[in-house]
Amino acid sequence: MTDHAHHGYITDKDKYLARLKRIEGQARGIHRMVDEEQYCIDILTQISALKSALEGVALGLLDDHLGHCVIDAARNGGAEADEKLKEASAAIARLVRS
Amino acid sequence: MTDHAHHGYITDKDKYLARLKRIEGQARGIHRMVDEEQYCIDILTQISALKSALEGVALGLLDDHLGHCVIDAARNGGAEADEKLKEASAAIARLVRS
Amino acid sequence: MTDHAHHGYITDKDKYLARLKRIEGQARGIHRMVDEEQYCIDILTQISALKSALEGVALGLLDDHLGHCVIDAARNGGAEADEKLKEASAAIARLVRS
Amino acid sequence: MTDHAHHGYITDKDKYLARLKRIEGQARGIHRMVDEEQYCIDILTQISALKSALEGVALGLLDDHLGHCVIDAARNGGAEADEKLKEASAAIARLVRS
Repeated sequence: MTDHAHHGYITDKDKYLARLKRIEGQARGIHRMVDEEQYCIDILTQISALKSALEGVALGLLDDHLGHCVIDAARNGGAEADEKLKEASAAIARLVRS
Repeated sequence: MTDHAHHGYITDKDKYLARLKRIEGQARGIHRMVDEEQYCIDILTQISALKSALEGVALGLLDDHLGHCVIDAARNGGAEADEKLKEASAAIARLVRS
Repeated sequence: MTDHAHHGYITDKDKYLARLKRIEGQARGIHRMVDEEQYCIDILTQISALKSALEGVALGLLDDHLGHCVIDAARNGGAEADEKLKEASAAIARLVRS
Repeated sequence: MTDHAHHGYITDKDKYLARLKRIEGQARGIHRMVDEEQYCIDILTQISALKSALEGVALGLLDDHLGHCVIDAARNGGAEADEKLKEASAAIARLVRS
């Protein structure tokens, strides 16, 4: 329970779950469009929309993570702060480059 | 039926459906990770992987579309070729910028 | 001379050169900002702007390329059309994934 | 002078300046390729390489910024930490979405 608290996104958990439910629905919709052989350009439009929605969730989670986990580690100081920062930077790089 | 043929991705349809099924599963997995309040960085890693998988599907569909729909329109000539090309370029721009 | 014609972007060459001149200036400006140790966030804003400007040029060149080189190859038919298409798809993939 | 110190990237300044010099050279090279009407796909390859180089610089600066400016603000606490964080998140979003 206490373990949960420091993962940071707990305050917005319901909002994230709702967004991810919608994302799952979008993925299912794209599957159906291909199955029904809908027009390729329309499918690509839906994929771009899904990609944007995913990026929105990722940026939100990252902001929460920096604001809780990384900031807390910074306040506690020591090696953990460096490690958290390194980890966050690697996650940002994956997002920018993917 | 004949309508399907010119949508171009019919040859690989099963492969696309399998990839999209997996993408749907990845989206569901991310939902579960948030629900279980797993570590934020691990969730971000999964989101980057899902984003890459989506881009892979989009690039495949686009390649098929250019190779069938756009090339056919080019061979038929006239205003349709220009229109198909404009449409494809707009889809590429959405992908690059999203 | 005739060689130039099929490279496709000749009609807008001056526009591209002007945009690329501006891009070069933006790169030089970012160098100066780092040299003067300006605020990091302001530098990042300029880098994002430069990235967008580059993508704009790339999307323009790609559209020209598809509309001339690829379409012409499609009309001529044969193996060259396939090759041009493969090449264009690979360039699109590099743009989307970079 | 002391103002410079807290901008964080001072330790690697020479490295950044060298990378940005190279980026400026890449931009100039792309201008020349268009001027000489080189093959479009080759120009696109160079643009993708330049985009990647820019992202590398941006990710480096961001990492430095988080590790100095944001972490310092976190340690000092108060409204400044929130503000720095909000600013960094907005810069990350611009990078991911551009």
